[in-house]
Amino acid sequence: MAGTNSERQLLTEGPVIILVEPQMGENIGMVARAMANFGLAELRLVNPRDGWPNEKAQAAASKADHVIEGTKVYDTLEQALADLNFVYATTARERDGFKPVRSPVVAAETLRARFRAGEGTGILFGRERWGLTNEEVALADEIVTFPVNPAFASLNIAQAVLLMSYEWMKSGMEDVGAVPFQAMGQTQSTKDQLFGLFDQLEDALDARGYFHPAGKKPKMIDNLRAVLSRRAFSAQEISVLRGVISSLDRFSRKNPRGGRFPADAKERQNDDSTGE
Amino acid sequence: MAGTNSERQLLTEGPVIILVEPQMGENIGMVARAMANFGLAELRLVNPRDGWPNEKAQAAASKADHVIEGTKVYDTLEQALADLNFVYATTARERDGFKPVRSPVVAAETLRARFRAGEGTGILFGRERWGLTNEEVALADEIVTFPVNPAFASLNIAQAVLLMSYEWMKSGMEDVGAVPFQAMGQTQSTKDQLFGLFDQLEDALDARGYFHPAGKKPKMIDNLRAVLSRRAFSAQEISVLRGVISSLDRFSRKNPRGGRFPADAKERQNDDSTGE
Repeated sequence: MAGTNSERQLLTEGPVIILVEPQMGENIGMVARAMANFGLAELRLVNPRDGWPNEKAQAAASKADHVIEGTKVYDTLEQALADLNFVYATTARERDGFKPVRSPVVAAETLRARFRAGEGTGILFGRERWGLTNEEVALADEIVTFPVNPAFASLNIAQAVLLMSYEWMKSGMEDVGAVPFQAMGQTQSTKDQLFGLFDQLEDALDARGYFHPAGKKPKMIDNLRAVLSRRAFSAQEISVLRGVISSLDRFSRKNPRGGRFPADAKERQNDDSTGE
Repeated sequence: MAGTNSERQLLTEGPVIILVEPQMGENIGMVARAMANFGLAELRLVNPRDGWPNEKAQAAASKADHVIEGTKVYDTLEQALADLNFVYATTARERDGFKPVRSPVVAAETLRARFRAGEGTGILFGRERWGLTNEEVALADEIVTFPVNPAFASLNIAQAVLLMSYEWMKSGMEDVGAVPFQAMGQTQSTKDQLFGLFDQLEDALDARGYFHPAGKKPKMIDNLRAVLSRRAFSAQEISVLRGVISSLDRFSRKNPRGGRFPADAKERQNDDSTGE
């Protein structure tokens, strides 16, 4: 199944998504897109209502062409599952039977472990209107169901595929808190940098008689430093703050009205500036 | 904001979803539906392209009427955020700036903790085509981004809302492995029930000369019992299995061909049955 084309090589990655008798081409396309978003690529359709290929599915898939082009069609669910070792059935409602019911997190972890062990895995989704029959659920190994609002439990098929694909991708990450990028300069400043900010601000305020009466100055400084310490500023943030203080301290107002929040400006202390 | 109608009371639950300049009514409706699926209810729109109310949004919302009816519209993002304490901005690409970047799991846990502490919280989503501006991101406290396939990173707005709403619901569950229902009869059988199965099957097989040659019988029984023990059958499953064995043991085949898997039937040992 793997080809020389790098996109085609994706086809062997992760669980197969199997849609039983899907009705709307748009939904098949949205399923393909959700799969591509989270690194899944092998889609199987059992007896799609409008045949295959399907122009509406291709349009709705956006750029997930590799999923649509690799989609396989089967006459029966048994044939679609034949080469797989372990399969989940998705269902929103309770079923009679002996199958374990798992959350998406546990199901994704199980699929990941079996995939790593070399097993062929799959996730089975039912028809838009009424899901899977009990006979179809019986062909799967376990059931996965979503923690939805009991008062509003109707997930559509593309949403259900999206959530399982998302959990699949998360299951491959060492840390669920990991993110693909991080802001620059998140390292907290040194204390020396923080103390420089204290000194600058306190000097600028002192020059304006802010610490008044004099007997309260130590307490006022404590409070001010507590405010500045609590957010663990980075060096860059301190640099920005010091620039702001410098500007406020050294220059007077060019334009006594206006700015982004004019309503606030009215409440500010009136500063009759005379230019630079 | 809470009313006497039980649906309206939902409006104060969980983070507010804020869409900045949404373009397509269908997307707004899908967002409302995704929110309702996972127990969120307060939607705010900043300057929606096609005005409000929007018929296409109502149609796409399916039965999430309480979300659509409670939707509020604002002229500016500042106004939409004014009463909130803590806000996430969602973005797919790296931004300049000093804001922490969180995964959906961590963001949902943070929102849950702040919500429980009585803070007003929100999640900000940008325009369909090009997301949020840097100025808009700057109004949020932290950034949340999704662990998507780098080669195919385009989540649509309803999908992004769905994933955050889903993580919000999970963050309120004590155990992420919890499921809303569980199969009946998952309790493992007693050993006595299991031994009854062993006895019945071994007797039925012994009567057919299965344990041959006699010297290998202990090892064959060990192997057979290992197969039957490994899956931790429930009492109900054992009952089903014993019924199957009884049927195979006591009756002969009425119809020597056919069945669900006719291809397999050809390979079975030919059993020239003569009726009951």
